[in-house]
Amino acid sequence: MRGKFLTIEGTEGVGKSTNLAFVRDWLQAKGIEVVVTREPGGTPLAEEIRGLLLSKREEKVDETAELLLVFAARAQHLAQLIKPALARGAWVLSDRFTDATYAYQGGGRGLSKEVVTQLEVLVQGELRPDLTLILDIDVELGLNRARQRGELDRFESETLTFFERVRAAYKDRALAAPSRYALVDASQELVRVQSDIEKVLLGLLD
Amino acid sequence: MRGKFLTIEGTEGVGKSTNLAFVRDWLQAKGIEVVVTREPGGTPLAEEIRGLLLSKREEKVDETAELLLVFAARAQHLAQLIKPALARGAWVLSDRFTDATYAYQGGGRGLSKEVVTQLEVLVQGELRPDLTLILDIDVELGLNRARQRGELDRFESETLTFFERVRAAYKDRALAAPSRYALVDASQELVRVQSDIEKVLLGLLD
Repeated sequence: MRGKFLTIEGTEGVGKSTNLAFVRDWLQAKGIEVVVTREPGGTPLAEEIRGLLLSKREEKVDETAELLLVFAARAQHLAQLIKPALARGAWVLSDRFTDATYAYQGGGRGLSKEVVTQLEVLVQGELRPDLTLILDIDVELGLNRARQRGELDRFESETLTFFERVRAAYKDRALAAPSRYALVDASQELVRVQSDIEKVLLGLLD
Repeated sequence: MRGKFLTIEGTEGVGKSTNLAFVRDWLQAKGIEVVVTREPGGTPLAEEIRGLLLSKREEKVDETAELLLVFAARAQHLAQLIKPALARGAWVLSDRFTDATYAYQGGGRGLSKEVVTQLEVLVQGELRPDLTLILDIDVELGLNRARQRGELDRFESETLTFFERVRAAYKDRALAAPSRYALVDASQELVRVQSDIEKVLLGLLD
């Protein structure tokens, strides 16, 4: 039986890492094999592409070049890691996936949703996550947390209004297809956040 | 007045570098400003993408990932170098461009021409080279030359039948749009090859 594909999304400093570990541990405690991965990245080549995307550079990065790099990494990630894992019955839990492209390159950069969809179909065919957790938090609060982690990468260095657009795009996606998304209020105490996530996971196991 | 956009194409060892220098010198002697560049590459980021594409690796490179990397580098190259140069009236002379994608990823790897066209339109809009010189030579002869240059990259290490498909795809493109292409027999003595190229350039200047 094919495994399930779960993704965790959200703006900077929203608590993705902590809650990804919570989801992994929770699923493993149910005896499920979980492959934890991330985007951009997940294979050696895709991680090299991640390095190109996140590094700050003097050269202005063309928005379409950025979009194509994101999907190049994704094509490699799908072929080498995600699809083989799902096929052997493992669950895949990814820190970001294509919703991040709709949010960052679509919402944030202002590229058209149609172009993102065109590439999504080219690279993924009909494959979509079974469940996407969108952790939602006030953008400024999250950015302050992210800044405390150390030096900011090329995306983390974007403006507040950029991240407001990213957050709005994530919310739009959650509202447009509520059966595939769970929008979680990540401003709550961690125990409440994880209780909300647990309810969603119980629903998925049914 | 917008400059002209010239590209030189061909399989490995066909003499692209030598003839590119000939074209550059010939145009400069006519008082034309020529920007010489190459693909994949042409800007710092695009050259880093080139490095990812050409380096040999243990990991199998997914064909769609390769295709998207090629077009990511091209989007950056167009935005940062090609379009600004053409706009200020310089001519741009590139060692490879999108015909190489039709030949290598289309012909060589077997990806569909429609997918290449979809990305060509996304990245280039209506921009196409004004002239493409396709240097044509027996594949084995060219590969023997390329091998004498030193260690082979990930593409140069492909099989003879791969390069036969690449060569055939280049020829198909030249035949399908003879007004934009010049197919040059690169197995001739260099002086004959360059005399053929000169005739084409004279035609372009008229």
